[in-house]
Amino acid sequence: MPKRIAAFGEVMMRLQVPGFETLAQSDTLRYTFSGTGVNLAAALSRFGHDGYLVTTLPEHSLGEAAIAYLRKLGIRTDRIRRGGKHIGMYFLENGFGPRPSRVTYSDRLGSSFNTAGENTYDYRSAVSDMDFVHLCGIALAMNDTVRGHVKALAQEAKRAGAAVVFDCNYRPSLWGADGHAAARRHYEDMLTLCDVAMMNEKDARLTLGMATAEADPDAQLQELIPKAANQYGIRVIAGTRRSVGSDGTHTLRGYVYKDGRFAFSKALTFPVYDRIGAGDAFAAGVIHGEAEGFSAERTVAFAAASAMLAHTTAGDSPIATVPEVFRALDDQGMDVER
Amino acid sequence: MPKRIAAFGEVMMRLQVPGFETLAQSDTLRYTFSGTGVNLAAALSRFGHDGYLVTTLPEHSLGEAAIAYLRKLGIRTDRIRRGGKHIGMYFLENGFGPRPSRVTYSDRLGSSFNTAGENTYDYRSAVSDMDFVHLCGIALAMNDTVRGHVKALAQEAKRAGAAVVFDCNYRPSLWGADGHAAARRHYEDMLTLCDVAMMNEKDARLTLGMATAEADPDAQLQELIPKAANQYGIRVIAGTRRSVGSDGTHTLRGYVYKDGRFAFSKALTFPVYDRIGAGDAFAAGVIHGEAEGFSAERTVAFAAASAMLAHTTAGDSPIATVPEVFRALDDQGMDVER
Amino acid sequence: MPKRIAAFGEVMMRLQVPGFETLAQSDTLRYTFSGTGVNLAAALSRFGHDGYLVTTLPEHSLGEAAIAYLRKLGIRTDRIRRGGKHIGMYFLENGFGPRPSRVTYSDRLGSSFNTAGENTYDYRSAVSDMDFVHLCGIALAMNDTVRGHVKALAQEAKRAGAAVVFDCNYRPSLWGADGHAAARRHYEDMLTLCDVAMMNEKDARLTLGMATAEADPDAQLQELIPKAANQYGIRVIAGTRRSVGSDGTHTLRGYVYKDGRFAFSKALTFPVYDRIGAGDAFAAGVIHGEAEGFSAERTVAFAAASAMLAHTTAGDSPIATVPEVFRALDDQGMDVER
Amino acid sequence: MPKRIAAFGEVMMRLQVPGFETLAQSDTLRYTFSGTGVNLAAALSRFGHDGYLVTTLPEHSLGEAAIAYLRKLGIRTDRIRRGGKHIGMYFLENGFGPRPSRVTYSDRLGSSFNTAGENTYDYRSAVSDMDFVHLCGIALAMNDTVRGHVKALAQEAKRAGAAVVFDCNYRPSLWGADGHAAARRHYEDMLTLCDVAMMNEKDARLTLGMATAEADPDAQLQELIPKAANQYGIRVIAGTRRSVGSDGTHTLRGYVYKDGRFAFSKALTFPVYDRIGAGDAFAAGVIHGEAEGFSAERTVAFAAASAMLAHTTAGDSPIATVPEVFRALDDQGMDVER
Amino acid sequence: MPKRIAAFGEVMMRLQVPGFETLAQSDTLRYTFSGTGVNLAAALSRFGHDGYLVTTLPEHSLGEAAIAYLRKLGIRTDRIRRGGKHIGMYFLENGFGPRPSRVTYSDRLGSSFNTAGENTYDYRSAVSDMDFVHLCGIALAMNDTVRGHVKALAQEAKRAGAAVVFDCNYRPSLWGADGHAAARRHYEDMLTLCDVAMMNEKDARLTLGMATAEADPDAQLQELIPKAANQYGIRVIAGTRRSVGSDGTHTLRGYVYKDGRFAFSKALTFPVYDRIGAGDAFAAGVIHGEAEGFSAERTVAFAAASAMLAHTTAGDSPIATVPEVFRALDDQGMDVER
Amino acid sequence: MPKRIAAFGEVMMRLQVPGFETLAQSDTLRYTFSGTGVNLAAALSRFGHDGYLVTTLPEHSLGEAAIAYLRKLGIRTDRIRRGGKHIGMYFLENGFGPRPSRVTYSDRLGSSFNTAGENTYDYRSAVSDMDFVHLCGIALAMNDTVRGHVKALAQEAKRAGAAVVFDCNYRPSLWGADGHAAARRHYEDMLTLCDVAMMNEKDARLTLGMATAEADPDAQLQELIPKAANQYGIRVIAGTRRSVGSDGTHTLRGYVYKDGRFAFSKALTFPVYDRIGAGDAFAAGVIHGEAEGFSAERTVAFAAASAMLAHTTAGDSPIATVPEVFRALDDQGMDVER
Repeated sequence: MPKRIAAFGEVMMRLQVPGFETLAQSDTLRYTFSGTGVNLAAALSRFGHDGYLVTTLPEHSLGEAAIAYLRKLGIRTDRIRRGGKHIGMYFLENGFGPRPSRVTYSDRLGSSFNTAGENTYDYRSAVSDMDFVHLCGIALAMNDTVRGHVKALAQEAKRAGAAVVFDCNYRPSLWGADGHAAARRHYEDMLTLCDVAMMNEKDARLTLGMATAEADPDAQLQELIPKAANQYGIRVIAGTRRSVGSDGTHTLRGYVYKDGRFAFSKALTFPVYDRIGAGDAFAAGVIHGEAEGFSAERTVAFAAASAMLAHTTAGDSPIATVPEVFRALDDQGMDVER
Repeated sequence: MPKRIAAFGEVMMRLQVPGFETLAQSDTLRYTFSGTGVNLAAALSRFGHDGYLVTTLPEHSLGEAAIAYLRKLGIRTDRIRRGGKHIGMYFLENGFGPRPSRVTYSDRLGSSFNTAGENTYDYRSAVSDMDFVHLCGIALAMNDTVRGHVKALAQEAKRAGAAVVFDCNYRPSLWGADGHAAARRHYEDMLTLCDVAMMNEKDARLTLGMATAEADPDAQLQELIPKAANQYGIRVIAGTRRSVGSDGTHTLRGYVYKDGRFAFSKALTFPVYDRIGAGDAFAAGVIHGEAEGFSAERTVAFAAASAMLAHTTAGDSPIATVPEVFRALDDQGMDVER
Repeated sequence: MPKRIAAFGEVMMRLQVPGFETLAQSDTLRYTFSGTGVNLAAALSRFGHDGYLVTTLPEHSLGEAAIAYLRKLGIRTDRIRRGGKHIGMYFLENGFGPRPSRVTYSDRLGSSFNTAGENTYDYRSAVSDMDFVHLCGIALAMNDTVRGHVKALAQEAKRAGAAVVFDCNYRPSLWGADGHAAARRHYEDMLTLCDVAMMNEKDARLTLGMATAEADPDAQLQELIPKAANQYGIRVIAGTRRSVGSDGTHTLRGYVYKDGRFAFSKALTFPVYDRIGAGDAFAAGVIHGEAEGFSAERTVAFAAASAMLAHTTAGDSPIATVPEVFRALDDQGMDVER
Repeated sequence: MPKRIAAFGEVMMRLQVPGFETLAQSDTLRYTFSGTGVNLAAALSRFGHDGYLVTTLPEHSLGEAAIAYLRKLGIRTDRIRRGGKHIGMYFLENGFGPRPSRVTYSDRLGSSFNTAGENTYDYRSAVSDMDFVHLCGIALAMNDTVRGHVKALAQEAKRAGAAVVFDCNYRPSLWGADGHAAARRHYEDMLTLCDVAMMNEKDARLTLGMATAEADPDAQLQELIPKAANQYGIRVIAGTRRSVGSDGTHTLRGYVYKDGRFAFSKALTFPVYDRIGAGDAFAAGVIHGEAEGFSAERTVAFAAASAMLAHTTAGDSPIATVPEVFRALDDQGMDVER
Repeated sequence: MPKRIAAFGEVMMRLQVPGFETLAQSDTLRYTFSGTGVNLAAALSRFGHDGYLVTTLPEHSLGEAAIAYLRKLGIRTDRIRRGGKHIGMYFLENGFGPRPSRVTYSDRLGSSFNTAGENTYDYRSAVSDMDFVHLCGIALAMNDTVRGHVKALAQEAKRAGAAVVFDCNYRPSLWGADGHAAARRHYEDMLTLCDVAMMNEKDARLTLGMATAEADPDAQLQELIPKAANQYGIRVIAGTRRSVGSDGTHTLRGYVYKDGRFAFSKALTFPVYDRIGAGDAFAAGVIHGEAEGFSAERTVAFAAASAMLAHTTAGDSPIATVPEVFRALDDQGMDVER
Repeated sequence: MPKRIAAFGEVMMRLQVPGFETLAQSDTLRYTFSGTGVNLAAALSRFGHDGYLVTTLPEHSLGEAAIAYLRKLGIRTDRIRRGGKHIGMYFLENGFGPRPSRVTYSDRLGSSFNTAGENTYDYRSAVSDMDFVHLCGIALAMNDTVRGHVKALAQEAKRAGAAVVFDCNYRPSLWGADGHAAARRHYEDMLTLCDVAMMNEKDARLTLGMATAEADPDAQLQELIPKAANQYGIRVIAGTRRSVGSDGTHTLRGYVYKDGRFAFSKALTFPVYDRIGAGDAFAAGVIHGEAEGFSAERTVAFAAASAMLAHTTAGDSPIATVPEVFRALDDQGMDVER
């Protein structure tokens, strides 16, 4: 039974140098449009749900291109406002081996999304008839007005009976020095409002300021996540742990904390084609599991395989279907059995 | 001393999405033309022989493009019939890591090759003056008329004194449910007619229905291949065994059964750029060994190195020369010695 | 006030050699998805209406790619059936000056659209809530089953109160020798059912067999179109006349016959980038004029400018917006005034 | 004898959709870096002079790419400041025939150039040892701080004995409603300071508010340019008149007013590959003529041919050498003689 | 009835900057392989004859690539010698409008073809069984050894009963100052040996030193070509006259002098995509006419249409088939009739 | 404190087949310009120094393209002579796994650099005001005239007080059979003149003919490098040792011998994107260390990381900055600690 999900977030134009040249070496860029909300709505649309994006885009040719791209991804675009003048952009130069990838942002704060003022969104109609409403820590980092939109949408969603999903994804560069302190109040507001949270032990320690005597991250996780769930009344908390092997492969393991206990996925190891957006693929997997009434074990396995596949496809936005995720899940299992 | 080889088979247009995007993401395809007969004739032409293709291609622009491409590969095209309306096609999307590659076929049964009727080929002149005539299980799977062509060409080749090579390559998707039973009679006909066969223990067990008490594939091979050689009067039987490592590398080992005993190549391990056509490169290596009077040991080593190199080059059709195969053989040997 | 339009027709994959090479010279294709129904629905979506496509597409990766592309064009895809195995394709090699462009078709009759059997479409729900339903002579040429779908949809649309639009576009290659005679009965059925027809004097003379003493095409048009409107009870008949200048520019003039009199656009002269789909842009312009209640003069001017712009954009499907069409209309006017 | 020229202006990143697709249709951009000062300095470097750019660019990868590109153009980059965070951008979609090209800007006001504060440039060293200093009306339109830089550089150049060149190029979109009135004071300041001005009769009428009883633009030019030269004490005033033919070719004629009389180039007619930057190629031709001591007739002929060639090369920045300009001049002459 | 034609000449690698950038602006080249002999043999192969190339190519990867490309063109490659170290190259930058195209050569004199010594070719077997042997003035310009090959092949062809075709194409840059005088002796040798010559009035006047009182080129042609035919005993002399219109179109008219009278084609006017190789397409048309026994009128019409089409296709080597040439001939005729 | 470095060497045009096709399969090349001197000067420019190239380049379009490319790399081009006719070229086909990369040279000996005669360079001004002058064994291998330039520049540099750097890089293919014997005298001349040498134990043994009883290369290095330093009076000798792992990764360790003792870098292991030019990146690192007064340990660590990064970037010429090298150094350290 397909559900209806609205995600609120900025649409970013991603301009990527093809191959392994730098911007100073190349003369060509490939562009797509993405963002946490975009990735989430796209992934859930591919899973068979109706994924809506709530955002603001300019009316000019770049805004048109963004809208057309979102439609191609399967996202419902009729709750997108048009207005403002600019679209946020980031330039991506691919790294290779010991040379890291490099991201350069354009002037994001002047974007249509970040300049959409107080009375621009009709919060009620933006989230009406939704089963889930997804909000995230990146929008929360932007400015007071955007923060206001995020919280108002959460409240309105709650009122309308939708499940509120909040992804902590704390980005240090967006909050600046002393960022955790500045962010805490807003994160607490959101966690109090949400039903499902993407959160890890660092969020708990650093942003929420929760104390722990443990030094090991896994032990911190086991201690702090249940505490946070209890403290803020969060029904489901989920996330991933990742490590990078010396051969460049990544290993990823997902967790879901629900009904007082943890479920963990297998540790999946795989090569990486395009890393960006994999966290959103995990979050989409968790929402799909909740939407379908999966057990926590099945949900976390599905979400981890969804995240793994998102590393193997081009672009930020996940494109795997439900059968493709399950087949990846099975193959990976068999690989381990051999 | 160069030999003359005729291969009978369909020319397929291969349309590949460049890079790692899917058909829904990309807007560009790179195309080549291939098929078992094409690959075989191309590989043997690169080995210095005269490789002829016997097939049917349409007269329109796609048929012209196919012919030009075959000429570029070094294949002799003057035994190709022109007629019919269509060319078979397949679309290829590259996989990455745990995401598998994906092949989508166009309407192959309406192709010029598969609609070429009973009196279209002059079998005698098609195989005249040949040292080897190559036929394969894919053409055998198409329809009764094509099967008729395959068998008639084998008989005519036999009559004219050419060595008949038959490659079992059984494709489940082409024979459908209950396929092995349907195929058996035709495979038996071909094996009875052939001098050299590409065959493995699965062909013996499943298609030919040979019984064995062994469970291990290697033991099955050791038991069934000599039996089959004896039963059908086949002078040489050859094939490969392949495994895929957890790091994505492939390991391949070739075997040649001849004069009552097996010769095995070293197990070669290598990364894979383009897997399709590697089996044909092995078969071409076996034919080259036979043509040159190599020992079975030298033949199987050459054929395995030929197959290995075919994994490292773009496109289905092998392009390595004899010196390149021998150099790969030597390098690989040294790598193992270290 | 946006209207709702459903177009019924086949989705074709267009595979175009970039630049001016032939298929035998190049190794690259760019692909899009189009067809009369696609172009019509896309153009009307860009004009601000809700354009639906009614068709059948396979479930595999090419079908997925087609659906994604249609969404990108702004077409509503939820009345598209999934089924069958294949998608029709055509290959396009660009001509240059005295060298004509060349089109090569794949095996179109085996496509999902052309093999969709008698009980596949629910005609009633396919056209429910529509203001216009668009059908065309290309689908009518395919086979009896598709012809059945076309007529049933027209009848159902009529019953439901939608305006039926029929585009004659008679294609000689699809009807074969003696084609006009074979087609007449079906065209008469459709013209009897339709409210708006795209038709010219050749359709009247050759397909419908209407007699005229005039030799000049313009005089034939003036005589036969009113006759046909009367005979079949068609509210609006529209079309274009085109000529090609020695410098390669095209000149196009549109006409609309309505309420007993003709309205003509100015003759527009312009260079051509991509000619395919321009007739559909004209038809979409006529429908937009009808939808908006334009005068016949305004409708034909708008439709002609829409057709002109479709010659200047990449791909079959028109992409101009209403303001862009009006600006082109004005500029062209001024150019003539100078 | 090579001269030294410094141009002050913003470096813009130009992101162009290849071919004739729109941003919504394509997925690829080609990028270069340009701007009036860039084009001017590049053109004069190609003419054998030392062209310096005075500007501010960010330190990140886009700034690096811009610097490398400027070096490739032959521009001296050691008077470029590094600072700020962003680079201005514009997206270019190519038009075709009656479909116009389209330019979309990113958030230009936040660029390094436009946020470089009052004490950032050392005006004296920026223009030291220069023969010419070039300033333009685009920088003048930005904000008060940039206007301050423009005027201070002009004063400093004057003091140091360099010839000041001012290009009026008034851009309505940058000055907004009531723009001419807002701009007048600043233009008057610059014209009073400059030795050489690029100006036409529209600048005189609209920006400077000079009255004329003439209606014909040519007559206005003949009346107002000498007046302006007199009023502001400008030694040389130059510019072009352009018209577009119905076949898409452009016709361009240059004028130079000096020593109390006009010199005109022939009217040059040519097809257009890339129009942007042609005005800067004309200005560079005028400066080259002045630098070399050409007669006004030779200067205007050279400048017009330089502008013509700039329409035929890729990118904004002119790349023709002095011999190439003279050959174009001769060929064009011969074409007329035939 | 297909004929056998051998052409002797150098294979050049053509490296072309795509689009309209210069070598200093771009970073990409597209490469093909061509040359007068290549173009001639390719064109005649497309006309259904057996076109052989006699040349020398190196054994390395560039030589392999050249051979594969020739095969793709349909050229018989088994009379090509392998030896030497290098392949001649030229770089091509496309011009636009008043900006001319630019060709830059690599070190051509060190090529395999130009260093092939005196005893490298077996002249007899090189031209055995041929109906036509084609030689040209470009090879004649290279050095004494190559000149020796050209003359020996002509003599051997004559002896074996093949028709000798000689194309004067005199290239000033290859003969240097005082070139006509240096060339005369060699041209006279070749004209004495040939049956069919490509020659115009300039060749007669400048290279052969024939005197005329006429100033008009057409009158010179009418006077000198019959004289030359008579003087050197040439059966057929053919050539073209070309002019370039102000709109960039070319106009071309062919002539064939045979049996004491001239036949002229219509003047064909057309836009140009790729000019190089069109003269070879004309020569191939003349040879085809001779091979088929066409009347002189039909031959010259066919050859001119062949040349026209060669301007409209990518690459140096003509690719039109006989039906395509005839259709172009007819269409052009109809265009004139309108 | 930036230093001034002049490198003397040939500029080669590198023409690379994109992806993994061969020259016979592809039709496209990407080109850049490189060479040992280019790479060295580019790397040191990126490290903040003034890198000059001393060479000769032709005046035509390829020469222009080379100069523009060198400027883009940040190299000072005003000590480059223009003259001669040709530029050296090499074609690069990428290998994959067991299939090796392949390099094919054009006729290099006819290049502008290699035909620049005895009185072409003004040695004194070529190296004036330099802190370092870099020369290498590749130029030494060309011909007597170029050898003369190399030695004269070394002597002149010595006289002017610049540190002379000599990179042995002995290339067997350039010296031919009996090459070491032919080279010895010239190497001895250069080592006697230089302050800093890039040299390994093979150079000592084979080219210089130094005897050793050790069989192990490391032991040979430890014995012979100090001897050579002593014998020729070389202040610093540096180099790298490399091995290739079975998974395709390379391991590289650098050494610097100075003040009577060796300093070694860590062994760095990494995947390889583009191997060419990495030795020059190491040499540039050594010169930077010397220029900055680093300890031998810091120098060798910096140089090794510089070499490692050069394997991960596109093109021959290193592009890493000093901060990027230090960061790679740190990251690699941490990877080892895990």
